[in-house]
Amino acid sequence: MMKILDSNTPIKVSGFKSIGIHSGIKKNGNKDLCIIYSEKPAVAAATFTRNTVKAAPLLLNMETIQNQNTQAIVVNSGNANACTGQEGIENAKAMAKAVADNLGLKQEEVMVGSTGIIGVPMPMNVVIPGIKAACGLLSTDGWNATAEAIMTTDSFSKKIAVEITIDDKPVIIAGIAKGSGMIHPNMGTMLGYVVSNVNISKALLTKALKESVDDTYNMVSIDGDTSTNDMVITLANGTAGNKIIDEMNEDYDTFKKALDYVNQTLAKLIAQDGEGATKLIEITLYNARTHEDAKKCAKSVISSNLVKSAFFGSDANWGRIMCALGYSQGNFTPDKIDIFFKNEIGTVQLVKDGAGIPFSEELAKDILDQKYVNIYIDMKDGDCHATAWGCDLSYDYIKINGSYRT
Amino acid sequence: MMKILDSNTPIKVSGFKSIGIHSGIKKNGNKDLCIIYSEKPAVAAATFTRNTVKAAPLLLNMETIQNQNTQAIVVNSGNANACTGQEGIENAKAMAKAVADNLGLKQEEVMVGSTGIIGVPMPMNVVIPGIKAACGLLSTDGWNATAEAIMTTDSFSKKIAVEITIDDKPVIIAGIAKGSGMIHPNMGTMLGYVVSNVNISKALLTKALKESVDDTYNMVSIDGDTSTNDMVITLANGTAGNKIIDEMNEDYDTFKKALDYVNQTLAKLIAQDGEGATKLIEITLYNARTHEDAKKCAKSVISSNLVKSAFFGSDANWGRIMCALGYSQGNFTPDKIDIFFKNEIGTVQLVKDGAGIPFSEELAKDILDQKYVNIYIDMKDGDCHATAWGCDLSYDYIKINGSYRT
Repeated sequence: MMKILDSNTPIKVSGFKSIGIHSGIKKNGNKDLCIIYSEKPAVAAATFTRNTVKAAPLLLNMETIQNQNTQAIVVNSGNANACTGQEGIENAKAMAKAVADNLGLKQEEVMVGSTGIIGVPMPMNVVIPGIKAACGLLSTDGWNATAEAIMTTDSFSKKIAVEITIDDKPVIIAGIAKGSGMIHPNMGTMLGYVVSNVNISKALLTKALKESVDDTYNMVSIDGDTSTNDMVITLANGTAGNKIIDEMNEDYDTFKKALDYVNQTLAKLIAQDGEGATKLIEITLYNARTHEDAKKCAKSVISSNLVKSAFFGSDANWGRIMCALGYSQGNFTPDKIDIFFKNEIGTVQLVKDGAGIPFSEELAKDILDQKYVNIYIDMKDGDCHATAWGCDLSYDYIKINGSYRT
Repeated sequence: MMKILDSNTPIKVSGFKSIGIHSGIKKNGNKDLCIIYSEKPAVAAATFTRNTVKAAPLLLNMETIQNQNTQAIVVNSGNANACTGQEGIENAKAMAKAVADNLGLKQEEVMVGSTGIIGVPMPMNVVIPGIKAACGLLSTDGWNATAEAIMTTDSFSKKIAVEITIDDKPVIIAGIAKGSGMIHPNMGTMLGYVVSNVNISKALLTKALKESVDDTYNMVSIDGDTSTNDMVITLANGTAGNKIIDEMNEDYDTFKKALDYVNQTLAKLIAQDGEGATKLIEITLYNARTHEDAKKCAKSVISSNLVKSAFFGSDANWGRIMCALGYSQGNFTPDKIDIFFKNEIGTVQLVKDGAGIPFSEELAKDILDQKYVNIYIDMKDGDCHATAWGCDLSYDYIKINGSYRT
């Protein structure tokens, strides 16, 4: 049985401390630096952006993830430390080293994340003192502040925690993530950090995370842009005391299922809070030939500017959905497709066997006017499924992104 | 020497007549049906959308293009005849047959184009009488009306004509095209029709068109959506009287160069008139490893919503350009990239060897405030080039596409 924990009370995961503070990177006084720390040795798994242009912290993490022990993560918002040359790499290392020095760790036991504007040198004059201050404030009550410190244009902080039982021991998995633009992950996504007290081998944690990311964060599209800084890191410190999960057994399945729930919840929160979004759109695509075809088709629909603009206007323009399926490069039979819009208001079918059918414009508009809309697509061409999440494309997206830097 | 003809006077190409009329498909009284007719036998070449979901007229044309003779094209706007099932195919055939009956041709000598809303049955009760009326109005002065009749959300009609000399004979190439949303061609693009009196074999016309489309229309992106209805058709009726071009000689090169100019001009007009566009963005990408890498990188930048939104706001956010290069799947060396913005105001360099350099924000903003901006990217990694065109992403794009159908 999985129990969802109240995310309004500070989540405590045994052996972990964390904190988020304002160090001075952001000019508006908002939190911009956080540290997640495991008091005990922990194993880490991570996925990184597939963008060829990788931010400095990612280049560093791709080395340090090889280390068997990872006990801390330091993340700043307000500056991406991307396209900053050799100086950027040195700054990322200096951030890791500052955390290590303050916490009695080795530099390679600390991972680094950055998000914000690209191409501006990291203001190390505030970051290093900020790290020192944050290390002194680490607390078992710091999780909410940590979630706030990784935000950029997000309108709310994104977090979820669940409790499961493995080997009769209570295991907690707690995750935080940030959006909300430049989101079309092709690996992990934006920033996502998940900590757990589960006892699991590094190999299996890595396998679980990779598979989970593919079906959750990687199925979200806000605007088709895959960031230079995307990463998801999971730390597991084993303090739950369960027998170590080092093979694909029932305990692994229990953990993986809960991890999927955490990641899926964070992915949906990111989609819901997409820049300028007024509604969450969920594509559920059934009966495709292969899982790959299903994912390509679902992701193509959620990535279409025309579909997203139509949803902003609550216009039941299903032709654009057919069009986006068509250029998805997924294989399917156009003459078999059925399309429905669904949510708490009701269900309306718009397409049957690939062609339009008469439908109630009024009902369709009522459905589309809600904060959540499910586009249900039945390919009738196989037995594979996929789900993707995104949001509508609104005036505010343009507003936010027309003046992000200036 | 190539001479550009004044497109404000009706273009006459020997042996061709055309006309555009209002038949009743559009409710606003605008022109919505046109016919292009060659009095003499003509060879046709065509490229069609790679979207798996193809509109009925495209499915028909993919058969009739096999015919050696093609003497007429009928195009309607206001209805895409896509996702309309078997009835749609029958309607497209009936449109071709109506033209053929009125002009004394065979049905397979007539090609059909449609653009507009997807999934609504073609109103044949107005289309067939419209075709009959249009056939009676065909004129050597009808070219401008023809260009108007293929418009949907375009704010102006797009046309260009050039005159060249081949084998001492004057040869005219005249083209029209329409945008302006759902444009991210992956074949030919939207609707483009090019007629010429050149004498050329069908095989070489086909080769010339295919290559030309790849470097022109296929390098435009308005919104990343590849339509169900995209097509470019070229007709050549040989009435210029030049010795037939049936091998890759100097005459072929002369013709190909002029055809490229026509198609590139139309492609740029489409980009400039992208839905909601306030400026034309041209990406010129130099010194890539391969032509394929150059095209992928240039097209990725022009397709990025984040880049396009930043340009709308005249925000010199070059990090988004680096980011879009990074996820392009083109091969390059991030540490070698230089990026400049250029136009009649001046030139500003923003990136050197992959990292930001200090630049004048004021000059950058002045450059970005113009109607045309060139993003000049030097990969310093090879000797291959590519150019891509697009526009900024504005509030009006959302406005137009939030209520296109309703």
